[in-house]
Amino acid sequence: MNAETIFARGEKASQEFFSHAVWVRMLHVDENKAFDTQVYNVEFEPSARTHWHSHPGGQILLVTEGCGYYQEKGQPARRLQKGDVVAIPPDVVHWHGAAPAERFVHIGMSTQVHLGPATWFGPVTDSEYGEVEAR
Amino acid sequence: MNAETIFARGEKASQEFFSHAVWVRMLHVDENKAFDTQVYNVEFEPSARTHWHSHPGGQILLVTEGCGYYQEKGQPARRLQKGDVVAIPPDVVHWHGAAPAERFVHIGMSTQVHLGPATWFGPVTDSEYGEVEAR
Repeated sequence: MNAETIFARGEKASQEFFSHAVWVRMLHVDENKAFDTQVYNVEFEPSARTHWHSHPGGQILLVTEGCGYYQEKGQPARRLQKGDVVAIPPDVVHWHGAAPAERFVHIGMSTQVHLGPATWFGPVTDSEYGEVEAR
Repeated sequence: MNAETIFARGEKASQEFFSHAVWVRMLHVDENKAFDTQVYNVEFEPSARTHWHSHPGGQILLVTEGCGYYQEKGQPARRLQKGDVVAIPPDVVHWHGAAPAERFVHIGMSTQVHLGPATWFGPVTDSEYGEVEAR
């Protein structure tokens, strides 16, 4: 954990939906459903990434440290660094994660959570991930 | 702006709803209403603070730098520092802002914005602000 880290590292996430090591800390669970929003901090080790997935209510990412990528299915990847914001519309299939040699930390917000949980579509393969870096 | 700053300082906010200097940068405006959420970075100079206000859809704050306060009407103030999270339920009258000798920066999220804009109730007086610091 370096000096810039704002939120303490959370629990190591299940490998069911991620490749390589990812730590997730919930910042707002919304257990009383008063805000219709969940907020969390996600830290990726180098090369770590989510599986392909989509959110029925959308998701917003705020990058706080490191370098990584966001890619929508069928589109070129967008390189991300500290200070970048990504608004991922409902039902858009995508992944996000670290660059191969750099850690990556973002705040994530799942918006309109009453619309339901994320849908998952399997890993971003090493081949798919390699194509991003080759650009 | 110090080395920890994640988001570049935004525009100086109107004095209509703030005391002392405050800078606001919108991070997600939600112009297409796809997320029902607005996100922004707010930087307060020492002693700067919002007026008393409430949000019909709630607000979540993530403190990224400095020291400040959050106070609900009729309650003791809560001192805030980097890494703190505040979930402000719908219609709760409150203010947030910097400690007297310290700058304060937070990310803010207005949730369920379809429920309407904030309602404002006038300044946190120097007397009210002084009581917080006296504790």
